[in-house]
Amino acid sequence: MKQFDLLIRNGTVVTASDTVQCDIAIAGGRIVQLGHDLGSARDVIDASGKLVLPGGVDAHCHLDQPMPDGLKMADDFESGTISAACGGTTTVIPFAAQEKGQSLRAAVADYHRRAEGRAVVDYAFHLIVSDPTETVLREELPGLIRKGYTSFKVYMTYDDLKLGDREILEVLTVARQEGALVMIHAENSDCIAWLTDRLEAEQKTAPRFHAIARPMAIEREATHRAITFSELVDVPILIVHVSGREAVEQIRWSRARGMKIFAETCPQYLFLTASDLDQPGYHGAKCVCSPPPRDRANQEVIWDGLADGLFTIFSSDHAPFRYDDPQGKQPGGEQVPFRYIPNGIPGLETRLPLLFSEGVGGGRISLNQFVALTSTNPAKLYGLHPRKGTIAIGADADLAIWDPAREVVIRNADLHHAVDYTPYEGTRVKGWPVTTLVRGKVVAHEGRLMATAGHGEFLPCALPEMAKPRYRTSGGSL
Amino acid sequence: MKQFDLLIRNGTVVTASDTVQCDIAIAGGRIVQLGHDLGSARDVIDASGKLVLPGGVDAHCHLDQPMPDGLKMADDFESGTISAACGGTTTVIPFAAQEKGQSLRAAVADYHRRAEGRAVVDYAFHLIVSDPTETVLREELPGLIRKGYTSFKVYMTYDDLKLGDREILEVLTVARQEGALVMIHAENSDCIAWLTDRLEAEQKTAPRFHAIARPMAIEREATHRAITFSELVDVPILIVHVSGREAVEQIRWSRARGMKIFAETCPQYLFLTASDLDQPGYHGAKCVCSPPPRDRANQEVIWDGLADGLFTIFSSDHAPFRYDDPQGKQPGGEQVPFRYIPNGIPGLETRLPLLFSEGVGGGRISLNQFVALTSTNPAKLYGLHPRKGTIAIGADADLAIWDPAREVVIRNADLHHAVDYTPYEGTRVKGWPVTTLVRGKVVAHEGRLMATAGHGEFLPCALPEMAKPRYRTSGGSL
Amino acid sequence: MKQFDLLIRNGTVVTASDTVQCDIAIAGGRIVQLGHDLGSARDVIDASGKLVLPGGVDAHCHLDQPMPDGLKMADDFESGTISAACGGTTTVIPFAAQEKGQSLRAAVADYHRRAEGRAVVDYAFHLIVSDPTETVLREELPGLIRKGYTSFKVYMTYDDLKLGDREILEVLTVARQEGALVMIHAENSDCIAWLTDRLEAEQKTAPRFHAIARPMAIEREATHRAITFSELVDVPILIVHVSGREAVEQIRWSRARGMKIFAETCPQYLFLTASDLDQPGYHGAKCVCSPPPRDRANQEVIWDGLADGLFTIFSSDHAPFRYDDPQGKQPGGEQVPFRYIPNGIPGLETRLPLLFSEGVGGGRISLNQFVALTSTNPAKLYGLHPRKGTIAIGADADLAIWDPAREVVIRNADLHHAVDYTPYEGTRVKGWPVTTLVRGKVVAHEGRLMATAGHGEFLPCALPEMAKPRYRTSGGSL
Amino acid sequence: MKQFDLLIRNGTVVTASDTVQCDIAIAGGRIVQLGHDLGSARDVIDASGKLVLPGGVDAHCHLDQPMPDGLKMADDFESGTISAACGGTTTVIPFAAQEKGQSLRAAVADYHRRAEGRAVVDYAFHLIVSDPTETVLREELPGLIRKGYTSFKVYMTYDDLKLGDREILEVLTVARQEGALVMIHAENSDCIAWLTDRLEAEQKTAPRFHAIARPMAIEREATHRAITFSELVDVPILIVHVSGREAVEQIRWSRARGMKIFAETCPQYLFLTASDLDQPGYHGAKCVCSPPPRDRANQEVIWDGLADGLFTIFSSDHAPFRYDDPQGKQPGGEQVPFRYIPNGIPGLETRLPLLFSEGVGGGRISLNQFVALTSTNPAKLYGLHPRKGTIAIGADADLAIWDPAREVVIRNADLHHAVDYTPYEGTRVKGWPVTTLVRGKVVAHEGRLMATAGHGEFLPCALPEMAKPRYRTSGGSL
Repeated sequence: MKQFDLLIRNGTVVTASDTVQCDIAIAGGRIVQLGHDLGSARDVIDASGKLVLPGGVDAHCHLDQPMPDGLKMADDFESGTISAACGGTTTVIPFAAQEKGQSLRAAVADYHRRAEGRAVVDYAFHLIVSDPTETVLREELPGLIRKGYTSFKVYMTYDDLKLGDREILEVLTVARQEGALVMIHAENSDCIAWLTDRLEAEQKTAPRFHAIARPMAIEREATHRAITFSELVDVPILIVHVSGREAVEQIRWSRARGMKIFAETCPQYLFLTASDLDQPGYHGAKCVCSPPPRDRANQEVIWDGLADGLFTIFSSDHAPFRYDDPQGKQPGGEQVPFRYIPNGIPGLETRLPLLFSEGVGGGRISLNQFVALTSTNPAKLYGLHPRKGTIAIGADADLAIWDPAREVVIRNADLHHAVDYTPYEGTRVKGWPVTTLVRGKVVAHEGRLMATAGHGEFLPCALPEMAKPRYRTSGGSL
Repeated sequence: MKQFDLLIRNGTVVTASDTVQCDIAIAGGRIVQLGHDLGSARDVIDASGKLVLPGGVDAHCHLDQPMPDGLKMADDFESGTISAACGGTTTVIPFAAQEKGQSLRAAVADYHRRAEGRAVVDYAFHLIVSDPTETVLREELPGLIRKGYTSFKVYMTYDDLKLGDREILEVLTVARQEGALVMIHAENSDCIAWLTDRLEAEQKTAPRFHAIARPMAIEREATHRAITFSELVDVPILIVHVSGREAVEQIRWSRARGMKIFAETCPQYLFLTASDLDQPGYHGAKCVCSPPPRDRANQEVIWDGLADGLFTIFSSDHAPFRYDDPQGKQPGGEQVPFRYIPNGIPGLETRLPLLFSEGVGGGRISLNQFVALTSTNPAKLYGLHPRKGTIAIGADADLAIWDPAREVVIRNADLHHAVDYTPYEGTRVKGWPVTTLVRGKVVAHEGRLMATAGHGEFLPCALPEMAKPRYRTSGGSL
Repeated sequence: MKQFDLLIRNGTVVTASDTVQCDIAIAGGRIVQLGHDLGSARDVIDASGKLVLPGGVDAHCHLDQPMPDGLKMADDFESGTISAACGGTTTVIPFAAQEKGQSLRAAVADYHRRAEGRAVVDYAFHLIVSDPTETVLREELPGLIRKGYTSFKVYMTYDDLKLGDREILEVLTVARQEGALVMIHAENSDCIAWLTDRLEAEQKTAPRFHAIARPMAIEREATHRAITFSELVDVPILIVHVSGREAVEQIRWSRARGMKIFAETCPQYLFLTASDLDQPGYHGAKCVCSPPPRDRANQEVIWDGLADGLFTIFSSDHAPFRYDDPQGKQPGGEQVPFRYIPNGIPGLETRLPLLFSEGVGGGRISLNQFVALTSTNPAKLYGLHPRKGTIAIGADADLAIWDPAREVVIRNADLHHAVDYTPYEGTRVKGWPVTTLVRGKVVAHEGRLMATAGHGEFLPCALPEMAKPRYRTSGGSL
Repeated sequence: MKQFDLLIRNGTVVTASDTVQCDIAIAGGRIVQLGHDLGSARDVIDASGKLVLPGGVDAHCHLDQPMPDGLKMADDFESGTISAACGGTTTVIPFAAQEKGQSLRAAVADYHRRAEGRAVVDYAFHLIVSDPTETVLREELPGLIRKGYTSFKVYMTYDDLKLGDREILEVLTVARQEGALVMIHAENSDCIAWLTDRLEAEQKTAPRFHAIARPMAIEREATHRAITFSELVDVPILIVHVSGREAVEQIRWSRARGMKIFAETCPQYLFLTASDLDQPGYHGAKCVCSPPPRDRANQEVIWDGLADGLFTIFSSDHAPFRYDDPQGKQPGGEQVPFRYIPNGIPGLETRLPLLFSEGVGGGRISLNQFVALTSTNPAKLYGLHPRKGTIAIGADADLAIWDPAREVVIRNADLHHAVDYTPYEGTRVKGWPVTTLVRGKVVAHEGRLMATAGHGEFLPCALPEMAKPRYRTSGGSL
C-alpha cells in the first residue's frame, strides 16, 4: 500500500469535461492517483459533500504594477495572492509592464523583484509592450518568449501605453513568428479623448460620465480593427474584457469567417452596470474601469457568450486602487474629473464565487463550463496546461474545495485584498471555495491564510497550442 | 496491492479536456483507478506510444431499420456493431422508427427484437416519430422517455416520415415537458418535390441530379423554420447532418440570439462533394445521401464549425445500402431515377479515422476536441455521460487505443460492414484505432473481432442536462 | 394661345424626383403641358401655397370582397373609392379573390360586377389565388395576366386562402413565365394555430391575445421561406404588410445577396402597437389585423426602412369591418374569441395624411420619397406607370392638391368609409389633401364628393418592369 | 405663341422618376416648358429616336489639383471639362485641396484661379481638409460652407493628406454644426504601409502588388471606423469609391441600424479587376488607383448595390496622370516601385457610356436609376438640385441627348482628356451621348467641342437636405 502526502477523499471531482466521485492522491505536490481506496497518506482531507475543482487561474490581474502620476496599486504580490487564494484561485498572471522608453527586459527584471518571495500562489507574467522599438521587436521579445513569457498585451488606448496601428501590426508579427499570444485592449483612444473633451467642456466630469465617454461603439470599432490586424498578420489574438453586444457581434462575425479570435470577459460585465458609476457623492469612482460596465441587456449578451462558448476565459481584471486614498481613486486627495480617476476595480477574490453562484447555480452554465472558463482554458491559452488548470495525473495539485451550499454575503471586511472597498458589497452568493491548495499544500482555509509569502513560484509559460495560426494559411494576406 | 481485471499501461490518455501519461486500472468493466504503478492485473495491455481515448459514441446511425418498398439495410446489429468496434466506436445509437399508423411502443419492441443478442458494442435507441397521434404524444412518448428513450428524431422531408409544422410543434412540446431532446432532419419537402419533378420533366434523372434537387437553400430554409419552432416552444433542438454554409449561418444566428440550437455534422460533408455523385455509369448512386455533399468551400465552413465549437457532435449517419443489390441502391435491380435511390451511405467504421487524420493530423482541431466531438459530447447530449464518453473513475471502460502513426489506405475489403462499397475507397489516413474495449473487454483488435454477438448491452438514457431550456424563460413565447 | 380644359396654377409640383414651381395644363384628362404662362383654360385652380402631388395609388386594399361565415366588408367600391378620393388617393387596387373550388375567371367576372359603375377613382385588380389547380395555373392565370391582371397574392395563412409550399412554388413559376408579380402574405399558419389553441386552452381569448398568437418570429419564418421560394424559382416577389424588425432583417439579408425582394408596409405598423389591442372592453377588436401591430421599437425599424429604401411601397391594407356589427368585428353579435374576429382595419382615407404628417413633417422622409412610396412606386410595381403615379406629360391628370399647413384631428365622423370607427380617432395631423382630381376632374374637395359613382374606370395593368428576374440568371436554381 | 431660345423636339425625356415623350422649351438657359406643340424657337433640335437626359454630374473628379513630388495632373479645367462635355457630363465637382500648413481659403482662391475662364461645363468645388487647425475648424470651414463650399473630403490614408481619428471627428463636428457633408476616403494607412514595406522587403514592387498592399480588409476596416465616427458625431457621411463586398457589408450593416451612410462607387470597380494591374511590362501602372479594382465576384456585389439602392451616386474619380510621362505614372521617367506610382485613372468621358451600356443595356438598372445615380442624386447630395440634375421647369437646361443604339468602341484617340491612355481601350459600348447642352447651349456634339473655354460657371452649393442628421437624435452619442 502506497503512502501519499495527501489524500482528498469522498469529494466530487470536477474537470472541464467530467464530474465524478473519486479520491485524489497527492505526492510531491502533484496529483498521482485518482480512484477509490487509494491507500494511506500523511494527511487526509475529507471532501464529503464538497466539490473538488482545479484551482482558478486568473489570467488577467494587475498587482504592484508601476503607475504614473503618483498612483499606486493597493495590492502587491502578497496581498494580491492571499486574496486570490482565499477566493479559490491558485495561479495568477499579472503584467510586467514596459514603460515608454524602458527596456522590456528591465521591466521584467523589475517585476520579478516585486514578486520575489511574496506570492502565496503560483504566478506567471504577461508582458505589456508599450514601446515596440526595433530592439524590443527583434531581440527582447523573442528572447523573453523563449524564456517563458509567451503572452503580451497591447493597448489601443491610454496615452502612456497605447500603440499605433502600425506598432500593433509589428507586435503581432513577432507573435506569429515566435508562436506567442497577443492580448488586446480594444477601445479607440481618439474617440475617448474627443468625447471626454466635449463632456468636460460641458462640465460633465462626475464619475458617471466615464461610461458616457466610452460608449459601446468605441469598443466595437477597436475590436473590429484588432480583428483586421489579426487577419492581415494571420495570427490569433485575444480580445480582453469584452463588455457587451456590439463587441461580441464583431467577434462572432470573425469566428464565422473561420478566424481564431479568442475573447475574455470579467465579472464587472455580468454584475455591474453603468448606473453603478452614478452613486451618491463620488462613490461611483469605485466602479470606474474600462471598458465601463454597460446595462442589463448587455449583461445577458455576455452570459449568452459564456454559455455558448464565445468566451474562452473569464478573468477578474483586478486593478486595485483604494477609494479613499491620494494614491488611488482620489488622486492627490481630490475628487477629480473622471478622466483622472485611475481605471480599475478589485475582483481577484470574488471572481469565482460570483460566477459560480449566478452562472452554475443559476443554470446558465454547467459546472464543467465553470471549470473550463476559470481554470482549464486560461491554463491552456497561456501555456500552463496540463501542469495547471485540471485535475489529472501529473498535474500540480492546485485545488479548490468548494462548499456548493455555503451562502455568503460579500463584505469587503471579509476580503483579503488591500483595497478599501469591493463593488460587490452586500451581494449574496451561494457556493464558496472553503479550502485552497497550491501544489498539494493548503494555502487558505475558511478565509484564513495557511501558507507564508513565498510559497508561490514563478511559472515559465510554454508556447500555447491555441495561439497557432489557422491551419489553412501560412503567410497572412500576402 | 490491488488486483485489477485489466491494466492499460504507458499510454497517453486523452479526454475532452486533458492529455496525460498514465495507466488505467479496470475492474468490473469500469475504470477504477488512474495513475502510475497502480498494482497488478489479470491482463495488461501495453499502450506505449499509443493514445488511449474514450471509445467513440456514434449517435446517428441506421441499423436494420425497417424500410418501405422492398428495400433492406445491409447492416443489422451484428455487422453494424462489429464495424463500429473495428472503427473505434463503442456505443451506437440507432433509431427505433415508427411507421405511420404504428404504435411507437410496438416500434420500440420490434427494434429490441432486432438488436437482442446481436450487438458487440453497447447501444441506445433514438425514436423516430412519424405519426404523432394523441396517444403517441400523451402516453407513448412520455412513457418511453421515462424508460430511457430520451431523444427522438423528426423529419421535415421524406413522404413516409415527414411531419407537418404543427406536428413538429406538438412533438417539441412533449420534449419540453419531459426534458427530452428532439433531433431534426431539416430539408423542405415541397421544394425537393418541386425541383425533382422539374428535373424529371427534363429527363435529368441521373444520380448527380439528386444534389441539384436539394440545393443548400432548401436545407437553410428548413433549418430556419426548425429554429423558429425551437424558439416558440422554448426547447433546445439538434439539427442533424448540417452540410454547409447557409445552414451553418442560420445556426450561428440563433446562437448569437442566445438560443440552444445544437448541431451535428458527418464525414460526408468534409470528405465528399456533389461531384462524387457524378461518377461514370451509375456509381454516383453510392454517394446519394441527404442533404447531399456540397463543394470544397462548404467543406471549409464545416471544418470551421468543428474547430470553433459550432458543432457539438460528429456522427456517421451510417445508412447502409448495398450498391449492387435489388434491395439497395438499384431497387429491383434497376438503375432507377435518382428520386428512387435509397438515401444514405455507410460510415460507421471510417468516421473516426477520417476525422482523426484530417482533423487532428491536419491541425484543424485538437485531440481533445476530437474526443469531445466524437465521444464525450454525444454521450452528454443523449444522457449517457459519465458512464460513456470519457476516461474517468467510475466510467465504463469503453476505450479505443489508437496508433497515431499507423497509415492506412481505406479499402472496403478491409471494412466489416455488410455494404459492398465505401465512398472513401482509396483514401489514405494516418492514425487508426487498433484495439477497442467495451466495458473492459477487448472486442476488436487489429481489425479482428474479439467478442461474440451479444456482448453489447442496451443502454437506457437519462434525461440530458444539455436539453434543458435556457434558464431565462419558463414558458416559451407565451 | 392654346385653350386647355384646366389649368392648375402657382402650385408647388412634386414628383418622386423633383419639387418645382410650375403650372399644369390638362386636356382630355391628361397632363399636356408644364411650365409658366401656359395659356388659358376653361377652368383654373389656384394652388398658391399648395403642393400638387400625383394622386395616391393604394395598392393594397379590400373592397366588397366576398367573405365566408356571414361576414361582410363594410365598404363597397362606392364608399371605398369616395373615402380614397377624400384622402388624396386616385387609384385603388383591390383583390379579385378566388374561393377554393371556384374558377379564377369567375372570381374576376364577379368582382367586375361589384365594381361596375360604382367607383369614383380608377381601379385595377390584383388576383388572390387560393386554389391553384392545373386549369388555373396553365390556362386561367396566363390568360388573365395577358388581359391586364398582372399581379396576384398568395397567402401562407388563413384556412380558406392559404397555399402549401408546393402550390406557392407553382404559382411563382407561372409568374416567372408570364412576367407577373406575386404578393405574399407571410405568416406561418401552423404556428398561429398551435399558439391559438394553447391560448384558448388557457382561456386567453380576449382581442389582445391576437397579437400574442402571431409573434414576430412567425412572420419572420414565413418571410424567410417566401424568400427561399423566390430564390428557387428566380422570380421577384413582394412581401406585403411587413410589421417589424425580424421580417425586415430577412428582407435586408436577401437584398444583400442580390435578390429582388420587394417590401410593403402600412400605417398600422407606424401608428399602432400591440397595446392598441388591449383596450377596455372589447374595443381592442378594432385593431385586430394580421400581422398585428408590434411595439415602438419595431415602429422605428419600419420608419428606418421607409427612409432607407427598403420599402418600395406604402399601402393601407384597408379591410373594412364595422365594429358594432354582426357581420363585422362582433360576428353574430357576439364578442367572440380573438380567432373569430375578422382581421383587418380601415385606412384608405387616412393612409396619406398620417404618413405625410409624421413622415414628411417629422423629417423622416422627403416629400419626394412620400410621392414615390405612396404613388409612383406602386404604379410602377403594378404596371400602371407612367399613366398613373406621376406628374408628367401624357400622364393621367390624377392629382392631389395638399395644404401642407392644414391641421386636422382625425375623426371617424369626418371620414367617408362605411366603417363605424377609425383606429386613429383623435390623432392630430398636419397637412391634408384638400382637392383630388381623377383624369382632370375634381372628384373630391374639402371632404365633399364632387363626382358621381362610375367616374372611376378599370385599369388593365401592363407587365411590370420591376418584376423581371435579376439579369444574371435565366432559369432559377436549375 | 411664345418664342423660345431652343426647342428639343420628339425626344424621350428621362428623369430619375419618369420616361415620357415630350418636347422641351428652353429660354434664358433654363427649361421653361414641357409638353407638345409648345411653340416656336430660334433653334430646334430634333431628338427623334433619342433619349434626352439630364446632363451628368460628376461629383468626384480631380482636375489640375496641385501635386507633391513634381507630379502633375494631365487635365486642367479646360481639357477636363471638354472631356466631360463630350461624355455627356454637364457639371463637375473637383477638389480644392488644402496642403498641410496651407490656409483653406488660400487653397480655394488658388483653385478658382486655376478654373477661371477655362471650363466649358459648370463646376462646383469640394474642399479637401488636410490640416484641420483651430482656424480652419472655427473660421475657415464655417465661412466657406456659407459661401457655397458645402462638402469636404477627408482621407484616412496618403501621408500628405491623411487625418488622424481625432481630426476626422473634429471635421465631422463642424459638418454637423453647419449642415455640410463629409466625404471619406476609407483605407487604413498603417496597414497599407506595413504591407507595402513587407512587399518591398521581398522585392515585390511591380504595379500588381499595389492591389496586394491594399486588400479588401483594409478598406473594410476604415469603412467600419468611419461609420463609427458618423455614429458618434451623429452626422451623415459619404464613403467614396467603394470597391467590393466587405465595405458594402459594413455600409449595409450601418443602414440596417438606421444610419445615414451614403456610398459612392466608380466605373473601375465594375469594369476592371486586380488582374488589370498585372499587364506585361509596366502597363499595369495605368490601372493603379485606390482602392484597387478587386475581382469579378466583387464587381457583382457592386452591381447589386447599384441596382438595390445601396449606392447613392456613381462618379468617375477621374485622376489624370499620363502613363509615359515623368510627371505621371513614371515619375522622373522611371518605372518606380508601386508605392511611388501616382494613384488614379482617367474616366470623366467614359463614366456614363460604360454604365449606360452594361447597366441599362444589360438590364441591371433601369434608365431612371441611371439618371438618378449619375445626375440627380449627386446634384441633390451636394446642394445643386433642382438647378442641376433633372429635367424640370426652372432647371438649368443641362442636357445630354443620347443615341441608345449607337455602338462605339472606346479608343483613347477619340477621347478628349489629356491623358495618353484609357483603361477601357477597346471596350465596346452601346449607347452614346451625341449632344451635350449646358444652360441651353450645345457645348459638344458628336465628339466635337461647340463652346469656348469659359462657358462653364462656378456653382455655389446649397446645404444639402440629405446631409441632415437623422430626425431622431439631436446631439450625437452624448
